[in-house]
Amino acid sequence: VVEKKTYRKTSFFQSRESGARMRSAYMATRHLTGSRTLSDFILAAVEREVEALERQYNGGDRFTADPDSVPRGRPLET
Amino acid sequence: VVEKKTYRKTSFFQSRESGARMRSAYMATRHLTGSRTLSDFILAAVEREVEALERQYNGGDRFTADPDSVPRGRPLET
Repeated sequence: VVEKKTYRKTSFFQSRESGARMRSAYMATRHLTGSRTLSDFILAAVEREVEALERQYNGGDRFTADPDSVPRGRPLET
Repeated sequence: VVEKKTYRKTSFFQSRESGARMRSAYMATRHLTGSRTLSDFILAAVEREVEALERQYNGGDRFTADPDSVPRGRPLET
């Protein structure tokens, strides 16, 4: 049985300047980071941050807070 | 003169599992990180990663690669 992985689109808001700086960094380092797409680059940054927070505040374990409790005040965010 | 800042939506793809883990971490640490929204949380992670790459590979300066040269193979990415 092949398990089908579902990928969801997640969005965030960014100033033009921050976006340009991010894309420059991605283009300049893609041969070093192994990120094949800008999406992969962003995902790697997010996962690194999550792991750092887990180490810093939760002994390296995943947090148990309900992921569905994130407020959805701005509909474009997730 | 008040300068109007333009914010753009940027998107990335994420497995359901990675998304749930991210949202749990965000909810559990929002009082510690100061991220007021999930969007702010993702943006902070991206900017931290960009700064780390600038330090590691470019002496702390911004990269000069053309930000508009990012391939747009998948239309949902940016």
